[in-house]
Amino acid sequence: MTHLTPHHDGSPLYVSNSAPALGDAVRVRVRIPSGYGPLAAVRTRSNPDHEPAWSDAVPQGIVDGWEWWEAEIVVANPRHGYRWLFVHEDGTVHWLNQSGLHTLETLDAEDFALVTSPPPPAWMHDAVMYQVFPDRFARSPQADAHPTPDWAIAASWDTPVDPVLPGRSQQFYGGDLDGITAHLDHLVELGVNLLYLTPIFPAASNHRYDASSFLSVDPLLGGDDAYLRLIEAAHARGIRIIGDLTSNHSGDRHEWFQAALGHPGAPEEEFYYFTDDANTEYISWLGTPTLPKFNWASQELRRRFIDGADSVVAKWLRPPYSTDGWRIDVANMTGRLGDIDLNADVRQVLQRTMHEVNSETVLLGESTNDAASDLQGDGWHGAMTYPSFTRPLWAWLSAPTGAPYLNAEGEELTEPWFFGQPIGGIPRYTASEFVAAVTRFTASIPWRVRLGNMQPLDTHDTARFATNAAPGAIPLAVGLSMTLPGVPVVFAGDEFGLIGTDGEASRTPMPWGTEDEPEVAARLALYRSLIGLRRAHPVLGTGGMRWVHVDDDAIVFIRESEEESVLVVASLRDVDVVLEAAAVPGAEVAVALVGEGALRPGADGSTRLSARGPVFAAWALPGVAQP
Amino acid sequence: MTHLTPHHDGSPLYVSNSAPALGDAVRVRVRIPSGYGPLAAVRTRSNPDHEPAWSDAVPQGIVDGWEWWEAEIVVANPRHGYRWLFVHEDGTVHWLNQSGLHTLETLDAEDFALVTSPPPPAWMHDAVMYQVFPDRFARSPQADAHPTPDWAIAASWDTPVDPVLPGRSQQFYGGDLDGITAHLDHLVELGVNLLYLTPIFPAASNHRYDASSFLSVDPLLGGDDAYLRLIEAAHARGIRIIGDLTSNHSGDRHEWFQAALGHPGAPEEEFYYFTDDANTEYISWLGTPTLPKFNWASQELRRRFIDGADSVVAKWLRPPYSTDGWRIDVANMTGRLGDIDLNADVRQVLQRTMHEVNSETVLLGESTNDAASDLQGDGWHGAMTYPSFTRPLWAWLSAPTGAPYLNAEGEELTEPWFFGQPIGGIPRYTASEFVAAVTRFTASIPWRVRLGNMQPLDTHDTARFATNAAPGAIPLAVGLSMTLPGVPVVFAGDEFGLIGTDGEASRTPMPWGTEDEPEVAARLALYRSLIGLRRAHPVLGTGGMRWVHVDDDAIVFIRESEEESVLVVASLRDVDVVLEAAAVPGAEVAVALVGEGALRPGADGSTRLSARGPVFAAWALPGVAQP
Repeated sequence: MTHLTPHHDGSPLYVSNSAPALGDAVRVRVRIPSGYGPLAAVRTRSNPDHEPAWSDAVPQGIVDGWEWWEAEIVVANPRHGYRWLFVHEDGTVHWLNQSGLHTLETLDAEDFALVTSPPPPAWMHDAVMYQVFPDRFARSPQADAHPTPDWAIAASWDTPVDPVLPGRSQQFYGGDLDGITAHLDHLVELGVNLLYLTPIFPAASNHRYDASSFLSVDPLLGGDDAYLRLIEAAHARGIRIIGDLTSNHSGDRHEWFQAALGHPGAPEEEFYYFTDDANTEYISWLGTPTLPKFNWASQELRRRFIDGADSVVAKWLRPPYSTDGWRIDVANMTGRLGDIDLNADVRQVLQRTMHEVNSETVLLGESTNDAASDLQGDGWHGAMTYPSFTRPLWAWLSAPTGAPYLNAEGEELTEPWFFGQPIGGIPRYTASEFVAAVTRFTASIPWRVRLGNMQPLDTHDTARFATNAAPGAIPLAVGLSMTLPGVPVVFAGDEFGLIGTDGEASRTPMPWGTEDEPEVAARLALYRSLIGLRRAHPVLGTGGMRWVHVDDDAIVFIRESEEESVLVVASLRDVDVVLEAAAVPGAEVAVALVGEGALRPGADGSTRLSARGPVFAAWALPGVAQP
Repeated sequence: MTHLTPHHDGSPLYVSNSAPALGDAVRVRVRIPSGYGPLAAVRTRSNPDHEPAWSDAVPQGIVDGWEWWEAEIVVANPRHGYRWLFVHEDGTVHWLNQSGLHTLETLDAEDFALVTSPPPPAWMHDAVMYQVFPDRFARSPQADAHPTPDWAIAASWDTPVDPVLPGRSQQFYGGDLDGITAHLDHLVELGVNLLYLTPIFPAASNHRYDASSFLSVDPLLGGDDAYLRLIEAAHARGIRIIGDLTSNHSGDRHEWFQAALGHPGAPEEEFYYFTDDANTEYISWLGTPTLPKFNWASQELRRRFIDGADSVVAKWLRPPYSTDGWRIDVANMTGRLGDIDLNADVRQVLQRTMHEVNSETVLLGESTNDAASDLQGDGWHGAMTYPSFTRPLWAWLSAPTGAPYLNAEGEELTEPWFFGQPIGGIPRYTASEFVAAVTRFTASIPWRVRLGNMQPLDTHDTARFATNAAPGAIPLAVGLSMTLPGVPVVFAGDEFGLIGTDGEASRTPMPWGTEDEPEVAARLALYRSLIGLRRAHPVLGTGGMRWVHVDDDAIVFIRESEEESVLVVASLRDVDVVLEAAAVPGAEVAVALVGEGALRPGADGSTRLSARGPVFAAWALPGVAQP
């Protein structure tokens, strides 16, 4: 189907101010294809203090087959939802919200939404994130000087990853921060500009999510000095760095926990949920005793950890470290236990502290399932979340049933669990189901927050996408992560073509030295090309997003701003579709950017898009002309 | 389409405990039609503390073409969401939630949900509510003794309602509580058993939503003594009474407001939002100066009004008044202003106070649009809300475009606004769109709360349904209000066939004495019959709800319990559908209850349902047999 329907989103083409204050008047525009009317009225419906309010839109004129209407909204609440109403002269009524065009009345949750909290820094929209799991990225010469810690099982760089406990968390490859610093030029060559480090605080595991302190960097990684060297070298190259903080729990070796464990009356006992009088039993993350859960009712915990300029959170954002933000681990469970829910407190205090200490920082929360209820703009700038991009991508672009991908040993690699869900493997979505899933899981997230959502193909917690990718699917997957609204993420090693059947097996040491092998070189070139596409076209960061054509095999969409547009096609099969003239204004002057496809003008102003599949291709088009 | 798909809802057939405590294990069952499988696994997915958790279901056996599976859920949060997962042996995955069966992953908001707050009293499920607007119901002889108040414009009982200000709020007919008491036998004859009175506190308008005190009943209505007479007479007849309380605002003549107005430093100034130092300017409901908005940050306001045994809320629930609950006016806006949102506080304190003072009371919040975000079980037992029943009903069952209903003067009665929405009149839904809208607006509401939602055809704030009803639609509308899950509501006068083009025109004085006119008598008989249906079949209050057949013209559904089932058909046109045997087990022994229709057994065990339209018909069937 061609999606030539009225369109609005939160981008600057349609919203005059994406960071309004309460009481501000914001002008909102909607574009309506000629022939959709005639219309008796176009209105917005807001819901100030949970009671509907309406404003009339005024037509602005017609350009390129679209009539533009504009209305004014006065922002009444921190999340100000609104929808569009189209009253046709024949009495037909349509509503437009973030899930699309509707004949039936629509849900508040799916309204477009303005948010009044401080916006994320502008650089977030230009970021291409590169995720590093420090133990597996690179060893510096200094790493050899460190003795293997008491909890660790030493592994050499070419030892296969052991996905079974105790190796699972104790197998220790000894990557360190100077190792990362030594490879920063790899990041520069790739084109990424934001480095996300999983935890670097001292701990008793290879993943370091069981921090024993938040006050210093693990000496095994080189300590604070190595972190400073990395920060300085990265910043010198235009690469920002965000850290990884566990707000749900610490490790059981944490200094706060040790001060409280077995010590009733210790000031830190209120930081945790001890369940006996002797402070020996306690609540922990999913019952894992090494990860005692924080009790955010403690004001002293807030003061030490997240609240104000003397907190842990602030320490690492201030000079000399000047870290550029945080990814918050297990953000979804933070502050939640039974009938307690302090999650909003924690995310709001975090954002306030970060904004006060360094407003050029980002705050991303891990929420790997439906994240919408926590993503209304009051805390997280975005989320590491999977159902709005990563999982639908896998479901569409993995090998079809009956043709499982095999690893080098001939073992079937399809996982019976899928991102923590016991659903028997990877579900099978068509391209249009991919679009439906992306729509479903983004419809309740304000546009500004959606732009901060991470779009990885995989992470340190998942299998690697390439493991099960359908033939030819890698360019589509990487290309979509770079072109759909959100923050692209490359999990270190994906650019080398690494595979891994689950989150443990994916924590493969980086195969340095293989860059010139033909398959690796080709994969690296693909990543450089697609990251370069994203970096060269700011519209992919902040532009509007309009579906142009969707069927069971192919998706075509366009990202749009006043300055430029980028048309994207992704399909596993051959594509041959005719796009109406208004669907892709300026197609006659399109400039091919990546991929092999053809745009051919038709006699009636339409454009024929054809390509051999599998294909990921993009074209530059002129910016959107408004009346 | 026939809806022979896996089914679950919150009713006792499927949930072992609808009022669990945190930590309780609840057994949940799902029924799966034979032939839907073969299945590799059936699981539940909960989301404790916002992190998915799974439980395996175990097959229980097959009865009447359905295989039943059972799983155990341990209730982790006050609202414990869960969904069903079906993994087919061929790898297909389906999810079942409150919006239906899905191939794509589903939203947390649409999960089934258990809630741990104290449940509403059991009587709520047997209630058929009758709404009375006291000024317009009946005058007792005592009413003649009251002088017309200073603000009022006296009207005699047969004066037409004036929908224009000042008459709109000042036209005064002088109905009183003894007038209601005198007509209680009318309620008994109708079969209703819950009387909902719009406000009865002293005020300066005919609607009394601008209370000048909450401590006594308006003397114009007969005062406290008349209220006691009414309560006692009603209770003696098995009729409960709920009142109407404005938690968003008082009147500007209210004793609290008067104490604060122009008196800086008065204890009551914190009850409102004064915006100047002299306490002369203030925030009010939608800018209406006679309705100053409450500031719920005031603990003293909470103490006086809603919190604890000495509060206003408690006073009227305790003997001697023993009121049976409250409908809370403007519940949706209560406590909300800009960046302030104390709504959850207010509804939770209200529920706690009411539960402590008299646990046999109900708490219903007015929230006339999408109410789901406030209906998660932590406060309101249900809502007076329109998009989940009333508005879709109008959209389906009103006169089609081109054949507008005319009033006695030949004026077209279709309203250009529709329930406060400037959408150009009544939208046109098919029967399947009616079902889609009901599903959309109930999918995010826990079953237990859905059962408390009011299902009026109209209220004192809307046009009357009959004004625009399609030919033959009245029995369908009344029948559906009695048979779909929720609390049926009759707005006084509907049973006489009154019409009214908007909320003001609908506040027509009751036409006592016309009961024997043929049209009125027929309408009264219809109401008695359909209310009687509801009252005679408890399954309509608490039974499961399963769509059996839906197309553009007809809906067929079944309410089910272990004890009995009721099959319902509603259609504006002729119906002739074949229902699979498993869709309506026991159809061969069906007993007709109301309406003209036929159920004929087919050779293969199927049932043919046929009827001339318009039709509303219902049959009694055996209860559901479980393994």
